[in-house]
Amino acid sequence: MSLRVGMIGYKFMGKAHSNAYRALPMFFPKAAKPEMAVICGRDGQAVQEAADRFGWAESETDWRALIARDDIDIIDINAPSDAHKEIALAAAQAGKHIFCEKPLALSLKDAREMLQAAETAGIKHMTGFNYRFSPAVQLVKKLITSGRLGQIYHFRAWFLQDWILDPSFPLVWRLQKEIAGSGSHGDLGAHLIDLAHYLVGDLEEVIGMSETFIKERPLAAEMTGLSAKGSADGPKGEVTVDDATLFLSRFKNGALGSFEATRFAAGHRSTNAFEINGSLGSVRFDFERMNELEVYFTSDAEDVQGFRRVLATDPAHAYAEAWWPPGHTIGFEHTFIHEFLEFTTAIQENRQPEPSFADGVKCQAVLEAVDRSIAERRWVSISEM
Amino acid sequence: MSLRVGMIGYKFMGKAHSNAYRALPMFFPKAAKPEMAVICGRDGQAVQEAADRFGWAESETDWRALIARDDIDIIDINAPSDAHKEIALAAAQAGKHIFCEKPLALSLKDAREMLQAAETAGIKHMTGFNYRFSPAVQLVKKLITSGRLGQIYHFRAWFLQDWILDPSFPLVWRLQKEIAGSGSHGDLGAHLIDLAHYLVGDLEEVIGMSETFIKERPLAAEMTGLSAKGSADGPKGEVTVDDATLFLSRFKNGALGSFEATRFAAGHRSTNAFEINGSLGSVRFDFERMNELEVYFTSDAEDVQGFRRVLATDPAHAYAEAWWPPGHTIGFEHTFIHEFLEFTTAIQENRQPEPSFADGVKCQAVLEAVDRSIAERRWVSISEM
Amino acid sequence: MSLRVGMIGYKFMGKAHSNAYRALPMFFPKAAKPEMAVICGRDGQAVQEAADRFGWAESETDWRALIARDDIDIIDINAPSDAHKEIALAAAQAGKHIFCEKPLALSLKDAREMLQAAETAGIKHMTGFNYRFSPAVQLVKKLITSGRLGQIYHFRAWFLQDWILDPSFPLVWRLQKEIAGSGSHGDLGAHLIDLAHYLVGDLEEVIGMSETFIKERPLAAEMTGLSAKGSADGPKGEVTVDDATLFLSRFKNGALGSFEATRFAAGHRSTNAFEINGSLGSVRFDFERMNELEVYFTSDAEDVQGFRRVLATDPAHAYAEAWWPPGHTIGFEHTFIHEFLEFTTAIQENRQPEPSFADGVKCQAVLEAVDRSIAERRWVSISEM
Amino acid sequence: MSLRVGMIGYKFMGKAHSNAYRALPMFFPKAAKPEMAVICGRDGQAVQEAADRFGWAESETDWRALIARDDIDIIDINAPSDAHKEIALAAAQAGKHIFCEKPLALSLKDAREMLQAAETAGIKHMTGFNYRFSPAVQLVKKLITSGRLGQIYHFRAWFLQDWILDPSFPLVWRLQKEIAGSGSHGDLGAHLIDLAHYLVGDLEEVIGMSETFIKERPLAAEMTGLSAKGSADGPKGEVTVDDATLFLSRFKNGALGSFEATRFAAGHRSTNAFEINGSLGSVRFDFERMNELEVYFTSDAEDVQGFRRVLATDPAHAYAEAWWPPGHTIGFEHTFIHEFLEFTTAIQENRQPEPSFADGVKCQAVLEAVDRSIAERRWVSISEM
Repeated sequence: MSLRVGMIGYKFMGKAHSNAYRALPMFFPKAAKPEMAVICGRDGQAVQEAADRFGWAESETDWRALIARDDIDIIDINAPSDAHKEIALAAAQAGKHIFCEKPLALSLKDAREMLQAAETAGIKHMTGFNYRFSPAVQLVKKLITSGRLGQIYHFRAWFLQDWILDPSFPLVWRLQKEIAGSGSHGDLGAHLIDLAHYLVGDLEEVIGMSETFIKERPLAAEMTGLSAKGSADGPKGEVTVDDATLFLSRFKNGALGSFEATRFAAGHRSTNAFEINGSLGSVRFDFERMNELEVYFTSDAEDVQGFRRVLATDPAHAYAEAWWPPGHTIGFEHTFIHEFLEFTTAIQENRQPEPSFADGVKCQAVLEAVDRSIAERRWVSISEM
Repeated sequence: MSLRVGMIGYKFMGKAHSNAYRALPMFFPKAAKPEMAVICGRDGQAVQEAADRFGWAESETDWRALIARDDIDIIDINAPSDAHKEIALAAAQAGKHIFCEKPLALSLKDAREMLQAAETAGIKHMTGFNYRFSPAVQLVKKLITSGRLGQIYHFRAWFLQDWILDPSFPLVWRLQKEIAGSGSHGDLGAHLIDLAHYLVGDLEEVIGMSETFIKERPLAAEMTGLSAKGSADGPKGEVTVDDATLFLSRFKNGALGSFEATRFAAGHRSTNAFEINGSLGSVRFDFERMNELEVYFTSDAEDVQGFRRVLATDPAHAYAEAWWPPGHTIGFEHTFIHEFLEFTTAIQENRQPEPSFADGVKCQAVLEAVDRSIAERRWVSISEM
Repeated sequence: MSLRVGMIGYKFMGKAHSNAYRALPMFFPKAAKPEMAVICGRDGQAVQEAADRFGWAESETDWRALIARDDIDIIDINAPSDAHKEIALAAAQAGKHIFCEKPLALSLKDAREMLQAAETAGIKHMTGFNYRFSPAVQLVKKLITSGRLGQIYHFRAWFLQDWILDPSFPLVWRLQKEIAGSGSHGDLGAHLIDLAHYLVGDLEEVIGMSETFIKERPLAAEMTGLSAKGSADGPKGEVTVDDATLFLSRFKNGALGSFEATRFAAGHRSTNAFEINGSLGSVRFDFERMNELEVYFTSDAEDVQGFRRVLATDPAHAYAEAWWPPGHTIGFEHTFIHEFLEFTTAIQENRQPEPSFADGVKCQAVLEAVDRSIAERRWVSISEM
Repeated sequence: MSLRVGMIGYKFMGKAHSNAYRALPMFFPKAAKPEMAVICGRDGQAVQEAADRFGWAESETDWRALIARDDIDIIDINAPSDAHKEIALAAAQAGKHIFCEKPLALSLKDAREMLQAAETAGIKHMTGFNYRFSPAVQLVKKLITSGRLGQIYHFRAWFLQDWILDPSFPLVWRLQKEIAGSGSHGDLGAHLIDLAHYLVGDLEEVIGMSETFIKERPLAAEMTGLSAKGSADGPKGEVTVDDATLFLSRFKNGALGSFEATRFAAGHRSTNAFEINGSLGSVRFDFERMNELEVYFTSDAEDVQGFRRVLATDPAHAYAEAWWPPGHTIGFEHTFIHEFLEFTTAIQENRQPEPSFADGVKCQAVLEAVDRSIAERRWVSISEM
């Protein structure tokens, strides 16, 4: 089966997605094959360069025109977050399958509208929570599902970065609420929330706190994402998103959760980590060492109990046989390849892929519940949202 | 200078304190010398055995008689927590210097009464927050005080144990509120709170959550602390303390805090760990590797930035020259030796040791603020307490 | 510039090379572009499947026919080791640039013949020591070259695997001297030797020891490389290569070297690791955590000396800007992409790439010097070879 | 049972031994009790200060007079290495039990003479290889003895320090052959050799290499061991011991060994580490994290194979119940306490303690075999010695 893709967006995520489409047929030859048909962006020259570089057959500057085409099966949305909703609604109406990067939308209301449109249209839809697709995270899922960790008591997770630690780092779009929707909370915390949902289950209630440590920053000369430069002496603008957001939660199954997302953790370029403690064992994961999972079992012999460092590259581990011999590691980009494997396979098998828009909605509900808990300084039940 | 000690209590902490008194003159020969005069406990035979084993000159079963003696300079209280207050008040009235194990008391009210009594009596008083006295923690203190970490943004800490994970573990006194006062919160969380106070500063407000995962346990045949055995089939009693308590906090200086104490973290025998992120660097500490501190500086050259694993056994580190050559580690018990070095040195120098009863009170205020925040499901300001 | 490639071999290395050719234009768009023209192997059907899967325009079963074509610029040799020489000589004679997997040849004599043929032909030639191209290894090179580690005293390296630990693992071709040339020594040790040459310099003399722990193994039903299955009860054959080889060496610059290669290190799927100690600092590398380098400097402040864990994903690190933001890791396959970047760039710039056949020869000289030292139980000078 | 000790030596090792004697009755109350009777050294004032500080009843400046006393059961020799033999011979003749620090003697011949004298006298004798007595090393012993690691294939060990890395560090006695006997080889390598003997078995043959990187050093103004200061401009003297010694070996049971001892490994204050690979599993130990042992078993389930980090502080581990609850660590000095527990217990039980002088002799034989292999540039069989 071959699936023709039209992708809207061509920066960081566009590059990661393109690489995934290119790699899929080679490493997972039995899966449905994505054809890199059209890449779309507002700047015609830039998007054509991306087409040439990433290997897309055509480029396009009008996403509506792209969606109107008959020869496109999949719309992949990785444009800036504030454009997700409009594109997704149109794509659903046109009957295209949709892959949408996280955050699904800037608000829960919008996300729900997108989900409903997708369900009404009967298309396949997926939200881009790529970290689920690390082999080590798949191993966690398997250990929990099979009961090998027992009843889960604790989930603690933190996503720590430091790229805006310098107060002279400029006011890029990711620091502006009207474009980004949220700061560390929606950018980083969203991934932790999805992992919590996937691995432990639904949340019952939350309470959070957040802070913007640096309240004004130099206006950016150029808006180029993570590597922008500003002038310390020039004009400044207000940072309108959170630098850090923490929250506590109770899961419906009784587990306790602790979440922290920050861009002010010096020394952490991108530490996306969690630990889960159950009645029969524990696991620890850190995406900076994504090939590894630390695993503990209470059933080990008394004199040799301890966390094992499992390298998830053996044939017994998810995706491993598609790659390299045991002990030969993979990296960040591979999570996207596995993610699109799920997407194309689900289309092929005529089932909903996971995580779907429903998972994006669920994540958004928690994000907003945390926001409300911060604004109103109280515990907020997810069922309120 | 020689200081005659009367110690009340002879179990886990009595052993750790005795060892500290014995070691002090050998490793810190210039410090005031504690004389192990009298050890006191209710069971005459057991306490005499402890006297013989630990090296105390005399044993005693009546703590009032001990306090009444003229030849005692210091009263060391490490009896069960519910006895701290009465003994401390009497000892203060008798003009003895007092070392009291944490928790200082079962309530903030009691703790304040003890502090006032000590201040009225003009004695030296100390609360047993021993973890401050790890060389690596001293290094953190030095880095922060000297400004080498810059402004502090984050303090996150967790004290994880697993000794009651098995539901058939019996209902020992530490699981009964009327004796222990609190569960993981007062036992483990108290240490984290003191480290937060010591290293980062005072808290402004808190909000927490807690859980007792196993609500009933077998009655213990014998009450022998950590190693008790119960019968799974026998009668059960209610667990009246928390198995786990988590809370978020805001520090007065604007830093954000995250605290977690649990006895349900499989694989963690006693992980007492924290990380601090500042504007110029970060530190990470884990008491299971107490000789180490991980340190990051933003000022390192661009191509070699990373957390350093510092082994705090060099002459540049606190206490190190009293011990062994660089690279030769120390252990848990050494924190007590350093703690009593502070206590006897402060008496010799006629100054208050730190942490004093005031620190014990401050810790208790946070513990109770967290309890109130849990009971009332709202943020609680420390100034309320 | 576009370079048309004809690749001979399509198994493990063929897959890694194909992936590299595909990825190069996307991630390094300014480099000369390899065109995946022809893939060649003996089994017509299998090689056509590989062509389809990996993205080669044509397949071919006769490598001589491939070399005879006018429209091919590069011959990439990753067929079994015993075929390297004949193909390389023919390709050189035909004026093709040659990339040859390690080991360059089964003997030093053959390797020298290949080098001479390449030099005579005036072509560009490269030997596939891919580990050089890890960003963290590039950082080591930079630190040493710039003098930041000072004079080098020690190089110790070990490449540990465990895939043949089970005595019932069958007699695959890698365990047969006539095909593989060598066991752990040539397969794993060769990589360590090249890293030593690259990072520290030439060796003066060596002395080694080796062992074949399991001397007979079941004949393999199918010869499928690393994942073969044998029958414990069936006929057995003699293992004619080493299971483990260790050697000591003295470098020409006075440093001391220790090398160990084994396939009998339980728990090590593929630990390719080294440590270098210099007068001003040290580094440690382990390919299982290939994105990391541990670095120590004697010049650090006295109270914060320790090995730093540097994540080589910052813009200051080699290749990093082509990939993902800081903290987002890469994997095994990326070493090949960087390797072919060097190869195509060197061709474009009309200079010899490194490592060239000369490095392959140098490695082979050490491998054979070690073999001789084992056979004759004496120190062997590299200049003897 | 009470055993009166006369100890000769009062510096680094004298301090460690004194601490052990003091701690034994408290932590191991059922063991024979050492009485700290007499401490002996040449400098009367210094040794009296040591007596006061360490808790010895008397001091003495004439070791012959000490040995001549009737009221002494044990002679503990930790004077400089060149004095061991004479003292030991006299003590044996006087019928005293002898504990002698390593190296037992400056030569194999002397060591054998000491062993023979001890055996002739029928006394108990012990050599101070303290690292055997780490709980984690005891766990290794247990795992190997019980067959849980299977047949041993590899032992690799390194003892890395950096205290003389600076060329201006002065010519202390440890760098002078006539006093110290040897450099890194005898000081550090000796410990590795003893661990190899204890854990894996006897060696068959060895071949080594060594180097003195800094051949001349400033004469030390004061000879104060590890912390001496020299003047870079003043007179220099020749370093007559090795800075680093490496050797390969074959064990009698067929295992391969790799040993490295150096004082030129920047960043390593005292890394005493080894790894052992067997047919059923592997273990890794590093004395800088002495409470931990990494353990791997081939029998673990396929999807969770990996090295476990075992904290050897559970009741299932050696000595642990004498100390603190699980997760509470011990340090360097505890190895000596356990060592003297073995010594006094063996005397009480009327059996030879281990390691005895025979182990000291066996270690010395390997040290000298390595020296000979270096001098003669050939493999040397231990049976030659």
